[in-house]
Amino acid sequence: MAKYQPSLDRTFAALMDPTRRAILARLANEGSASISALAEPFAIKLPAVMKHLDVLGEAGLITRVKHGRTVTVRLSPDPMREALEWLHRYEPFWSPRLDRLAAYAERLEAKAGKGGA
Amino acid sequence: MAKYQPSLDRTFAALMDPTRRAILARLANEGSASISALAEPFAIKLPAVMKHLDVLGEAGLITRVKHGRTVTVRLSPDPMREALEWLHRYEPFWSPRLDRLAAYAERLEAKAGKGGA
Repeated sequence: MAKYQPSLDRTFAALMDPTRRAILARLANEGSASISALAEPFAIKLPAVMKHLDVLGEAGLITRVKHGRTVTVRLSPDPMREALEWLHRYEPFWSPRLDRLAAYAERLEAKAGKGGA
Repeated sequence: MAKYQPSLDRTFAALMDPTRRAILARLANEGSASISALAEPFAIKLPAVMKHLDVLGEAGLITRVKHGRTVTVRLSPDPMREALEWLHRYEPFWSPRLDRLAAYAERLEAKAGKGGA
């Protein structure tokens, strides 16, 4: 039986929501952002954004630092490593990538083309 | 703004539960299993296991085939690839691995040891 990793529950639960994934993507692009700046692109209210940040914070995926009245949010993606390692175990069971198959078919075609020339 | 991938919602939501991860791990080890065999190691009732299998099925992570009275469950981990690719984008932001640092420290020590001999 595989070892139970409770942190994986929190990481995957945090990543299942598109708003939370968008927040992480934005923090990866910009390094850090204030909560109000993070909330801006979403059609949801600030308290809803705060709840998403709580979930991300509990999963250890962000850190929040208060400077005066502004809270600066930073990406802290280390818990994703455990998730990635968990997913990697299933890689041998994946179907071959279609694009890899397409590349192989192209090489075969190119070879056949050369042979015929 | 990153493209919204609704299938990622389903994949991460499916993976957030330890029973569902354990089912996937078991299917990876054994190739396939009947629903009653899958349910056996868990302290939950069959209907609860069926619900977990529904979540895994909706995420495309398992397939179920009925042979007479037995339903055979198989691993279908392809949706994990998208999840893995999403996570890979954050790899540049991770802290260096502690084991890599430990290996580096060991090399330094070995070097220092040789120098002293």
